[in-house]
Amino acid sequence: MSPTSAPRFRPADLVALAEALFRSAGLDAEKAAVTAELLVEADLVGHDTHGLALLAPYLEEIRKGRLARTGEPRVLADAPAALLWDGQYLPGLWLAARATDLACERAARLGTATVVIRRSGHIGCLAVFLWRATARGQVVLLASSDPSVATVAPHGGRRAVFTPDPIAVGLPTPAEPILVDISASITTNAMSARLAREGRKGPAAWWIDAQGRPSDDPRVVEADPAGALLPVGGLDHGHKGTGLALVIEGLTQGLGGFGRVEAPSTWGAAVLVQAWDPALFAGLEAFTRQTGELAARVRACPPRPGVEAVRVPGDQAAARRRAALEQGLVLAPAILAALEREARAAGLALPAPLPD
Amino acid sequence: MSPTSAPRFRPADLVALAEALFRSAGLDAEKAAVTAELLVEADLVGHDTHGLALLAPYLEEIRKGRLARTGEPRVLADAPAALLWDGQYLPGLWLAARATDLACERAARLGTATVVIRRSGHIGCLAVFLWRATARGQVVLLASSDPSVATVAPHGGRRAVFTPDPIAVGLPTPAEPILVDISASITTNAMSARLAREGRKGPAAWWIDAQGRPSDDPRVVEADPAGALLPVGGLDHGHKGTGLALVIEGLTQGLGGFGRVEAPSTWGAAVLVQAWDPALFAGLEAFTRQTGELAARVRACPPRPGVEAVRVPGDQAAARRRAALEQGLVLAPAILAALEREARAAGLALPAPLPD
Repeated sequence: MSPTSAPRFRPADLVALAEALFRSAGLDAEKAAVTAELLVEADLVGHDTHGLALLAPYLEEIRKGRLARTGEPRVLADAPAALLWDGQYLPGLWLAARATDLACERAARLGTATVVIRRSGHIGCLAVFLWRATARGQVVLLASSDPSVATVAPHGGRRAVFTPDPIAVGLPTPAEPILVDISASITTNAMSARLAREGRKGPAAWWIDAQGRPSDDPRVVEADPAGALLPVGGLDHGHKGTGLALVIEGLTQGLGGFGRVEAPSTWGAAVLVQAWDPALFAGLEAFTRQTGELAARVRACPPRPGVEAVRVPGDQAAARRRAALEQGLVLAPAILAALEREARAAGLALPAPLPD
Repeated sequence: MSPTSAPRFRPADLVALAEALFRSAGLDAEKAAVTAELLVEADLVGHDTHGLALLAPYLEEIRKGRLARTGEPRVLADAPAALLWDGQYLPGLWLAARATDLACERAARLGTATVVIRRSGHIGCLAVFLWRATARGQVVLLASSDPSVATVAPHGGRRAVFTPDPIAVGLPTPAEPILVDISASITTNAMSARLAREGRKGPAAWWIDAQGRPSDDPRVVEADPAGALLPVGGLDHGHKGTGLALVIEGLTQGLGGFGRVEAPSTWGAAVLVQAWDPALFAGLEAFTRQTGELAARVRACPPRPGVEAVRVPGDQAAARRRAALEQGLVLAPAILAALEREARAAGLALPAPLPD
């Protein structure tokens, strides 16, 4: 949490700056606009490792020519409930947003549909795509893996085989949607790197070193030889996280037909988007009655000592988003500094902060 | 593990006995045959809490009229990639096997398809349905919840809201399929009940008591007031298991339009089957190249001290199945005793064990 004296920015002003920076780096208008909006959206909901923190790395990828500035995904299959795109390393947030919209359109016709993207640029945090589907009364699941990276060990192992392999699902309810955003590893690469940079430890054995010793120290990932993040379930029941990782890597890279076999070196993503339209099953109202009941039962669950209340995933994101839209967004000092650096280099200025 | 002196039975003989028992209880021929075969299949792959151990409880449900002997599921929607059945509490193994076959047929035409069953009878263990899809080169996901039961607490809570909410996925490879069979809770109801019955503890805090104290004692579930099983991730990162539970209960009960809102009292299941046909994405060969590579990387991962080898989910099931088919199946004493009781009551005998 930042002190209240930290500058607060209007989210729309930050979107405008990010969009201008992407445009000045050569991105098409629509790609710049969508990428900027979705990065700020991640900050709005509290995923600040996957918000404007990614702006400078993305600009760097564009400058180095590893992220395409312009073009369209190539359609490799259209089945009609199964679509496969070659993303050609176009900006991943833009690709995934379009894939989500297309999956929803097809689901509205067919009941369910899958869009798989191979060779997508990095897609940031999956949570930001869920609203596009839940706002139209649909259910969506996104999963992704990056075959160019391995930081997570399988259960019983001491070397990385997988990426964290995030999976996110949005479920409409009569009120705010349930937004689940988890990964097959206990923590994420971004969080692990942040803890390491700040010299902090994790609250439990979230890592394993190269010798196979469980560790609460994120620096084992950067050691030589390198350790790894542990899968969900940790030492006790990490076969569950390992199973989830195999499902996510298998679906994304397998259906895409591009993955660890090709051993790509470009930072990117293999993405699966699955949409379901409740209207073509038992109806949207029947769906939200059940999800509303589930959410109510979770909220009514008495908490264990030391826990204030039992939360439904998505509640905190919605509250943060409301607060940031009303009171402005505070950026962590390192993120703000990087944004200012990029702005200055492009001859632009940070927006004026909101008055205290 | 049973001693080698325990009787070993030919799996086909056990299927024949179970089939005869279901028929004598009044089940249709096909329902009796499929249910018997799939219960023994669960034993073959080592899921002995969900194999013939369920025969006596299923017969009891049939006798009490809570499991229908005859009839067909009612088709409530056909979209064409989205199907919804009212299972009318017909035998769940038979329903889920048919739903899996239908999802695969539709996926072969459309790329992906979903079959949801509401008011299914209990469906045993999800792993036994995966081969039907992987054997035809397809990918399948099954998930289920039982809205008549709650034994799993959400993260931070001390009262049960969910069932264990299993999810299983089968992924073809060039060799044996990857078979993931996990749940959103650390352990299952059946395993928890078995540990409690045998006076054993869990290896870690897999439970929480009604006062909110973490516990390694499965008996807290049967205490008054009752405790609960903990979600995957436990006290440390149980929000991940909670998220998974909400996804599984939301999809199965929400798309089915029948669940905790109706508060049913019949032991049953809300089921989702999703199939994908790799042939309509990048092709089956492209798919299995990636999944084969993933499996090879997991197997090649150096194990941590104390672990013999890192395993791919499905390897152990395949090995157990091969061994049982070659050397016969050993049933735990309590399961064998219950089977013998049911056989005697129906005027049938146990099959002759294989010679030592």
